Amino acid sequence: MDKKLIGVDLGGTTIKFAILTADGEIQQKWSIETNILDEGSHIVPDIIESINHHLNLYEMTPDQFIGIGMGTPGTVDRAAGTVVGAYNLNWKTVQNVKAEIEKGTGIKFALDNDANVAALGERWKGAGENAANVAFITLGTGVGGGLIADGNLLHGLGAAGEVGHINVQPDGYLCTCGNKGCLETYASATGVVRVARDMAEEFAGDSELKRALDNGEEISSKMVFDLAKQDDILAKRVVDRVCYYLGLASANISSILHPEYVVIGGGVSAAGDFLLEQVEAYFKQFAFPTIRNTTKLKLAQLGNSAGVIGAASLALEFK
Amino acid sequence: MDKKLIGVDLGGTTIKFAILTADGEIQQKWSIETNILDEGSHIVPDIIESINHHLNLYEMTPDQFIGIGMGTPGTVDRAAGTVVGAYNLNWKTVQNVKAEIEKGTGIKFALDNDANVAALGERWKGAGENAANVAFITLGTGVGGGLIADGNLLHGLGAAGEVGHINVQPDGYLCTCGNKGCLETYASATGVVRVARDMAEEFAGDSELKRALDNGEEISSKMVFDLAKQDDILAKRVVDRVCYYLGLASANISSILHPEYVVIGGGVSAAGDFLLEQVEAYFKQFAFPTIRNTTKLKLAQLGNSAGVIGAASLALEFK
Repeated sequence: MDKKLIGVDLGGTTIKFAILTADGEIQQKWSIETNILDEGSHIVPDIIESINHHLNLYEMTPDQFIGIGMGTPGTVDRAAGTVVGAYNLNWKTVQNVKAEIEKGTGIKFALDNDANVAALGERWKGAGENAANVAFITLGTGVGGGLIADGNLLHGLGAAGEVGHINVQPDGYLCTCGNKGCLETYASATGVVRVARDMAEEFAGDSELKRALDNGEEISSKMVFDLAKQDDILAKRVVDRVCYYLGLASANISSILHPEYVVIGGGVSAAGDFLLEQVEAYFKQFAFPTIRNTTKLKLAQLGNSAGVIGAASLALEFK
Repeated sequence: MDKKLIGVDLGGTTIKFAILTADGEIQQKWSIETNILDEGSHIVPDIIESINHHLNLYEMTPDQFIGIGMGTPGTVDRAAGTVVGAYNLNWKTVQNVKAEIEKGTGIKFALDNDANVAALGERWKGAGENAANVAFITLGTGVGGGLIADGNLLHGLGAAGEVGHINVQPDGYLCTCGNKGCLETYASATGVVRVARDMAEEFAGDSELKRALDNGEEISSKMVFDLAKQDDILAKRVVDRVCYYLGLASANISSILHPEYVVIGGGVSAAGDFLLEQVEAYFKQFAFPTIRNTTKLKLAQLGNSAGVIGAASLALEFK
């Protein structure tokens, strides 16, 4: 039997697992809740137990696996196999993840951060079509990214691919990083809402979005996009502003990396082609001709599975 | 005797040559004029003749060389070893450079574009201190760049590292590429003069630069920097504007690549620390904390030799 991969996508609320073929086809998947109590000290033991339990269930043994790959929040030391500063896991101190999981399962283990791993997944089995150069932008609570050049993830000194902190508007909105005008302040789920609140203040026309904001209703990024699709004037302007910054950032990433694809994923990208087409229009305005004519923008295709698939691909290094 | 490298830096006015050790120490160097007549058809034969002539002179034979590396203007097909569209060489059609030079010299040959090769040189023996991740920005007639990640040049689909076309000011100056607000329109030698002309129009104070412009004198980027160093108010404002855009672009390149060093070279960088310190101030404003605290800005150190040294390093692949 051909050897398999295990992919683990560690998040703040759930831990997703999958067993995949070496070609990236998912054969089994399951998930467990993330127990962040006691400084997250249950997380690694839970992962080990869940893997061993499922191997038992499927009557499989460690030697049938090439390796385990995992995506995690926080700052990863890939060589040491450690993670630090994953605050949504309550991991404040250095976690010796690789050593513990290899010991607990008897299977080789590799890890990288969650956005990088999702980029690997989309590149391998999703919108990236296994191209050599793929830029992945994920629009969630924040804006993250993973950049693949000549088939390899870019890490630089560790923080390469932090596309959420590309400055798209000097003197723009204040970001959690302390700077002003980071892409994340406009194009994350919270950013979209912020743009909406801001533009609503100086908007006087007829708009459902404006009414909702004035009534103090809770609004979401999804609501803004839904209203824009229904031709709400203010919502359309908000989406236009968000797409302007995404198009600008995509063009500048592409002038630097010249990828085959810029893939846009994450919760906000659920707005689909409505989002993509508007980002593309600005991308074509801001990218210089060589890039404009060769780099393509696409929506992510794997949804929640990008993480486990990309994570599993990390283990291919043990093949 | 240890085998040597040959580096060739092909430019529109001169062709520079060097013989180097495999460690990158220059042992001999010389140059010839570039003869661009007859659609540049003399260039490759001249290169071959000059190499063979000097090998004779130094009583060396082809088998004493690892290979020849060359940097060239135009669009390079590295695999095919060809160049096309190098307009300052009069090369309008595809030039079969690698095949001809290998046949004419009996030495293996590799090539890349001139900005990439200069980046390799600065990384290897200059300001880049042989770090794994180095971004090189060259401020000349235009603005070019070469980006090294994990020790390798980024090419993407071919135009990676075109940092001159990073958009730093949507709706800014019109660029030769057809877009508005590319870095090159502000930070190249001609860009600096353009900023000066533009700011002079709305400037009413006492300024030598203003007087020179009003008198219709020919002004240069060097003159603007020299006057700024002498506290000319308008010139200082022009330099501030240029450094603002360079700082913004450097920060955004660094958010994408997280390099050890951003190295600034080319003619405009002759302004030295006066330029660097002002770019750095804006870089620190626009880069997010992780980058700000780890990526360093430096001036290029090799001057005109970066090209031959970096070019020679291409031939290390034949070692």
